[in-house]
Amino acid sequence: MFRYKLTLEYDGRDFVGWQRQDNGPSVQDTLEHALGRFCGHPVIVVGAGRTDAGVHARAQVAHVDLEREWPADTVRAAANFHLKPAAVAVIAAEPADPDFHARFSACERIYLYRVLNRVSPPALERGRVWWVPVPLSEGVMADAAQYLVGHHDFSAFRSSMCQAASPKKTINAIHVIRDGDFLSLEVRARSFLHNQVRIIAGTLKKIGEGKWTAEHLRQALMTGERSFAGPTAPAHGLYLMNVRYSP
Amino acid sequence: MFRYKLTLEYDGRDFVGWQRQDNGPSVQDTLEHALGRFCGHPVIVVGAGRTDAGVHARAQVAHVDLEREWPADTVRAAANFHLKPAAVAVIAAEPADPDFHARFSACERIYLYRVLNRVSPPALERGRVWWVPVPLSEGVMADAAQYLVGHHDFSAFRSSMCQAASPKKTINAIHVIRDGDFLSLEVRARSFLHNQVRIIAGTLKKIGEGKWTAEHLRQALMTGERSFAGPTAPAHGLYLMNVRYSP
Repeated sequence: MFRYKLTLEYDGRDFVGWQRQDNGPSVQDTLEHALGRFCGHPVIVVGAGRTDAGVHARAQVAHVDLEREWPADTVRAAANFHLKPAAVAVIAAEPADPDFHARFSACERIYLYRVLNRVSPPALERGRVWWVPVPLSEGVMADAAQYLVGHHDFSAFRSSMCQAASPKKTINAIHVIRDGDFLSLEVRARSFLHNQVRIIAGTLKKIGEGKWTAEHLRQALMTGERSFAGPTAPAHGLYLMNVRYSP
Repeated sequence: MFRYKLTLEYDGRDFVGWQRQDNGPSVQDTLEHALGRFCGHPVIVVGAGRTDAGVHARAQVAHVDLEREWPADTVRAAANFHLKPAAVAVIAAEPADPDFHARFSACERIYLYRVLNRVSPPALERGRVWWVPVPLSEGVMADAAQYLVGHHDFSAFRSSMCQAASPKKTINAIHVIRDGDFLSLEVRARSFLHNQVRIIAGTLKKIGEGKWTAEHLRQALMTGERSFAGPTAPAHGLYLMNVRYSP
């Protein structure tokens, strides 16, 4: 078998999420189908991050094992041909070592949460941002976010469906950046709990609008109580931006 | 009557264009309908630029006359309420002088043409960019574009449907900017011929991929022959970014 690393872009609105499910097309399904038609044998796609329904990807990473050794460009082009008209594209394909694992070899995942912060609803960015009409202070949000950086028990920042064995995670960095009406929250970690970035976004929004102070966030971290953290921000503001592997 | 200046964002994919037409909803129609429901009297919306079907706007400008004097924020909020679920948003509303005219008072229109320049098709940016899979040299395109700056006869750069009395226009500036796989072409002028920006984009694409040289573009300008200019680039890569008025 020959292993390939694939870099993927997709519009989360068209899928029930990354993982195979009964209630509609998943990104994984769609890819396995397209690659199967190209190779003529069943293909299993292993992704770096199991994004939820509605969550987008600029550069999700996956690996696949193919029975024949194809030029990587052929794999990319054939996959894109068979993916039509689905809103997924293989933006890069490379041969990978047999011990490369898209999920377990990843040393950092980078997510971006995008907010449109203006009184008027989105027209061009609909389904691609979280619309927050109340003014948010990005400075206050950026300061509060720094409490989350480092190794912590993120019990307050996980969904009740989260299957991770431990609630302890290490956030490498959080950046809050404003560009006009757009506010972006970039979060970097080796791995995340279920809904962790969306609950962080929901919590920082409460702080940014002045309803809560950073103290609330500290309490959430210290007590592990979900009720101290904010609501889960909508899926369609979230983007898996990149997955990094050690060279 | 009380005049208001409105700033509008819309997704061009959902409309037959700015102007009223028989074959589907136009942006103008949709706005007149929404404002009519709010005011209780027929409203005429006059736009700065008559964008074609599929062309987007980040900040189109229009004016309207209302029988009652409303706070500008009320006009904005009510319009957005009645516009739902159409992909148009009023991002700003301001009271305007009776002699303010969205179209005739404009001193500069700024258009952006967006290209996704990579081998793989767009997934997240579908319907929002022109996908060009062959490599484009932004430096060569930027150099060639400078021939277009200034006052010229743009006969070669107008559609056969163009109704402008004169083919002479003044381009104030063209910027070609690359950001990774995205290539943007910003064109500024007081006014444009029909399809002018899209034909410029189609011509610069030919030059950027090395099929033509800048000489081709000079010939197009000098002879006024449409065949010397490139094809009309697709509507969905074009954005009306801003309309400027003298203070």
